Amino acid sequence: MAEESSTQYAAYTLYKVDPAWLRLPIEERAAGKEAFAEIVAGWQERMDLRSYSLVGVRPEVDFMLWKLTDRYDDLRELTTDLNGTPLAGYLSTPYSYLAATKPSQYFEQKSKRPRRVVPRGAPYLVVYPFVKKREWYSLSMDERRRAMQEHAAVGSRFVTITNHTTYSFGIDDQEFMTAFECEEPADFMHLMLRLRDSEASRYTERDTPIFVGTALELRDILDSLDGAAARVQA
Amino acid sequence: MAEESSTQYAAYTLYKVDPAWLRLPIEERAAGKEAFAEIVAGWQERMDLRSYSLVGVRPEVDFMLWKLTDRYDDLRELTTDLNGTPLAGYLSTPYSYLAATKPSQYFEQKSKRPRRVVPRGAPYLVVYPFVKKREWYSLSMDERRRAMQEHAAVGSRFVTITNHTTYSFGIDDQEFMTAFECEEPADFMHLMLRLRDSEASRYTERDTPIFVGTALELRDILDSLDGAAARVQA
Amino acid sequence: MAEESSTQYAAYTLYKVDPAWLRLPIEERAAGKEAFAEIVAGWQERMDLRSYSLVGVRPEVDFMLWKLTDRYDDLRELTTDLNGTPLAGYLSTPYSYLAATKPSQYFEQKSKRPRRVVPRGAPYLVVYPFVKKREWYSLSMDERRRAMQEHAAVGSRFVTITNHTTYSFGIDDQEFMTAFECEEPADFMHLMLRLRDSEASRYTERDTPIFVGTALELRDILDSLDGAAARVQA
Amino acid sequence: MAEESSTQYAAYTLYKVDPAWLRLPIEERAAGKEAFAEIVAGWQERMDLRSYSLVGVRPEVDFMLWKLTDRYDDLRELTTDLNGTPLAGYLSTPYSYLAATKPSQYFEQKSKRPRRVVPRGAPYLVVYPFVKKREWYSLSMDERRRAMQEHAAVGSRFVTITNHTTYSFGIDDQEFMTAFECEEPADFMHLMLRLRDSEASRYTERDTPIFVGTALELRDILDSLDGAAARVQA
Amino acid sequence: MAEESSTQYAAYTLYKVDPAWLRLPIEERAAGKEAFAEIVAGWQERMDLRSYSLVGVRPEVDFMLWKLTDRYDDLRELTTDLNGTPLAGYLSTPYSYLAATKPSQYFEQKSKRPRRVVPRGAPYLVVYPFVKKREWYSLSMDERRRAMQEHAAVGSRFVTITNHTTYSFGIDDQEFMTAFECEEPADFMHLMLRLRDSEASRYTERDTPIFVGTALELRDILDSLDGAAARVQA
Repeated sequence: MAEESSTQYAAYTLYKVDPAWLRLPIEERAAGKEAFAEIVAGWQERMDLRSYSLVGVRPEVDFMLWKLTDRYDDLRELTTDLNGTPLAGYLSTPYSYLAATKPSQYFEQKSKRPRRVVPRGAPYLVVYPFVKKREWYSLSMDERRRAMQEHAAVGSRFVTITNHTTYSFGIDDQEFMTAFECEEPADFMHLMLRLRDSEASRYTERDTPIFVGTALELRDILDSLDGAAARVQA
Repeated sequence: MAEESSTQYAAYTLYKVDPAWLRLPIEERAAGKEAFAEIVAGWQERMDLRSYSLVGVRPEVDFMLWKLTDRYDDLRELTTDLNGTPLAGYLSTPYSYLAATKPSQYFEQKSKRPRRVVPRGAPYLVVYPFVKKREWYSLSMDERRRAMQEHAAVGSRFVTITNHTTYSFGIDDQEFMTAFECEEPADFMHLMLRLRDSEASRYTERDTPIFVGTALELRDILDSLDGAAARVQA
Repeated sequence: MAEESSTQYAAYTLYKVDPAWLRLPIEERAAGKEAFAEIVAGWQERMDLRSYSLVGVRPEVDFMLWKLTDRYDDLRELTTDLNGTPLAGYLSTPYSYLAATKPSQYFEQKSKRPRRVVPRGAPYLVVYPFVKKREWYSLSMDERRRAMQEHAAVGSRFVTITNHTTYSFGIDDQEFMTAFECEEPADFMHLMLRLRDSEASRYTERDTPIFVGTALELRDILDSLDGAAARVQA
Repeated sequence: MAEESSTQYAAYTLYKVDPAWLRLPIEERAAGKEAFAEIVAGWQERMDLRSYSLVGVRPEVDFMLWKLTDRYDDLRELTTDLNGTPLAGYLSTPYSYLAATKPSQYFEQKSKRPRRVVPRGAPYLVVYPFVKKREWYSLSMDERRRAMQEHAAVGSRFVTITNHTTYSFGIDDQEFMTAFECEEPADFMHLMLRLRDSEASRYTERDTPIFVGTALELRDILDSLDGAAARVQA
Repeated sequence: MAEESSTQYAAYTLYKVDPAWLRLPIEERAAGKEAFAEIVAGWQERMDLRSYSLVGVRPEVDFMLWKLTDRYDDLRELTTDLNGTPLAGYLSTPYSYLAATKPSQYFEQKSKRPRRVVPRGAPYLVVYPFVKKREWYSLSMDERRRAMQEHAAVGSRFVTITNHTTYSFGIDDQEFMTAFECEEPADFMHLMLRLRDSEASRYTERDTPIFVGTALELRDILDSLDGAAARVQA
């Protein structure tokens, strides 16, 4: 299985702060945010690690970390470090998704090398777990390739949207982790609406929950959790 | 994608107060309500922001904010400000929905400009997320247009009910956020019962949870959470 | 829409007391129960308001209030008053259902006036939300009427059971709130078993959760929550 | 309805102790267990009331009470008494099931008297709620009887397993409460595996959650909740 | 039923530590971890008992114990001992699965002896509950055997992956507990992707949640829960 040697793991962790944290003294909150942000900053030197705000959008999460690494153990070690910060005592993770890269069955037959995920740093990242109906896998490879090519052709007309889909078969509850960078959430809404009529869309079993993350520095996100960002601006 | 330039974002956030908040001293509760109401009042000068009571109706939520803005970042900034109030330490958001305007595929082909949502300020607002069966999207555009026209014809006979549906494809877990202003909840019940026989209704995958909000000033809603409103009346 | 002028709203609220309440001093619990019971007693002079015990039956609820009123705002005002009592700080409402009366499509075509719900005060009340499969609504009105008449004919042979079904289309997550008064829970079990073979039963999408309430004075119910009733008897 | 006069009610209540209870002083825990066990012992003189341990098996429950009584009100009164003990402040009931006896439609047409449930006191009790697909009820009575006879014939070959199924139509969310006493959990696994091929099995809509209870004295179960049993043995 | 005499029980318990535990003094946490680890070490001399980390992967669990024993009561007694440790007051078990060995219907007809589960101690263990569609059981035994042989043939080409599937019919909510030891999570992803096209895969009703555990000493896992491991390394 030499072709898997350069697999990247992609993980998405969604965090929610306990409202009880908001009742702590401001100094205690500040120290907790600082320690958490420092750990993340340290790891950003070792792996591709990006933060996104969900504040004011999803009801059950506040922010998301997008992690990309060739070394599976990094996922455990990063979390272990974060567990050592005071903020961890008030954080829960309503969702966390694991996936890996591999060559597409439909578009990359020649190279056999997994396409690496390289974020371009767009202002928004839309992420959701994806499961196809089992009937899809009973179609011939030609039928599936044709459907995926139609699908990709529509996507390619939305030039400001970049697709970073990875694979979760057997290592998480979904089949794919779909991830799109875009310039404006409404752009992505138009793409998805347009794709509803496609052949491939008929074989969707589940494509939720959908997370629209706004790319922000982690310190700014943490300051928005208790309104510190707002008070500084005022 | 110039035609999307005037997109409005519509968000619905459903709040629940922790019963533990009711055990706080009355002064602390009053200060928490005051700070929360002030933030909302400030934002009402910057965007269309309305409050609705669910007290005594839905079991899992107490009130709803309906937000309309052309600027996506307003959603995060408003929540950041609310996070800075003492009441935030006792609030959860069991649901929050995101949608955007766009021209209807069935009725507005000519203009291509999204119909703007303009609330008329009716006493009740009925809101629910809506998902169609994927089979719907395999019908021809003519079949779908005919079904939607039948649907709209029934709705148009209920003259006291105003429809403000927006689109969530790819940016939230539903396809549509359906929203109706009406004069009396029972009126809307009659409309929905009448629509059950329609062609389009057969393609409904999910149309719950349904929230019947009563338009009220936010201060009155907050005073109903701990019965302060009741005691003042007595 | 003159025919809706005498609509009754029916609401069912299911309450659960937090186990932490049981750890409070007995005097504090007694005062909380007293204030709650007084509010309910006051409202019983203004609307039809009945209490039922679920203690020892359903796992997630302790008691139920059945509310009948022509005035929708009563539902919010009653809850506002209850929110002002100390017990509210320890109560949650795992379920709450909203419905309204209207003339039956199948049996009351002539009068067009909604049949009013008039409880007879039987010892047990069985309540559940009900949703039909959408296929039901594609049947002709004649087919549906015939199926409902078969259904009603079976029910009419159980003379000790009284049906008080109301309508929730568009104002809550179910289509109907089914409610039956009976003399003994096992009687209702026999009726429902008998109806499983009926034509209409094939079109049931959901008919749970089912609540078997025992009619009791609210003070007695509240005393059973912390065993005070038991200790007095001993 | 004279034939229902000797109906037995069967109830299964599944309890979970709050981990916070483990942090109480040992004397407080001991007193709480003692009071709870005394109430149960008192009721065991009035009704058939058995206790089963789920410790180390199901994740969400610790123990189960199996209650059999001809008097429906016993269910509320027993729980009221238990609510008066200090342990109740730390117990939740993730599940509770209600059912009643009646003559089988398939095997007891002649007598018309409900078969009474008489536990034999086997070391294990397997309990689960059961719902058939509505299609089952569209089969002719002969087809259903034949399928049930095949089903029963397989069961009768497992002589160490005793079936105590009761009926929940209309009084709880399942149709049946299936209950089997057996000598060893693996025996029951073999019976259920063998039944997967049967005609009746095709009409299963839901047969979970499944609880494998170990018959134990309640005092021993309560002592296992905080490891007191373990420490005494050591 | 002599052939069941050497049945092994397999249980998987998934633990989550309450974030409130992270706020305890470090000495209290250390003592809690030590007592918990000692109990497990003691039981490791009596049964096959292995620990796996889920830190940084699944959102709702932190670690997993894999238990193999011929004596069913061991499962209760081990948990009773763990309940006596201070850490138990802060642990929940979001999932726990029970299964047993038996001879495969498709591959071991001759011996009739259950294949014993013998872990080889690979660095990763992938575990998930599995339920087949009931239609599967209507296929002839020959059809099922052929499908399973195709399935097994694919699996056998992934030589670094070892299958330890056991049976849960009637003793837990799934039919099978699927468990695979492997050298790298991405290897297992490739196997599962490859199996999607197989005949047997069409009959999958549910194969989630999927847990990818990393084999680690329990003391190291416990130290990662509060970041103690990280701080020692620093």
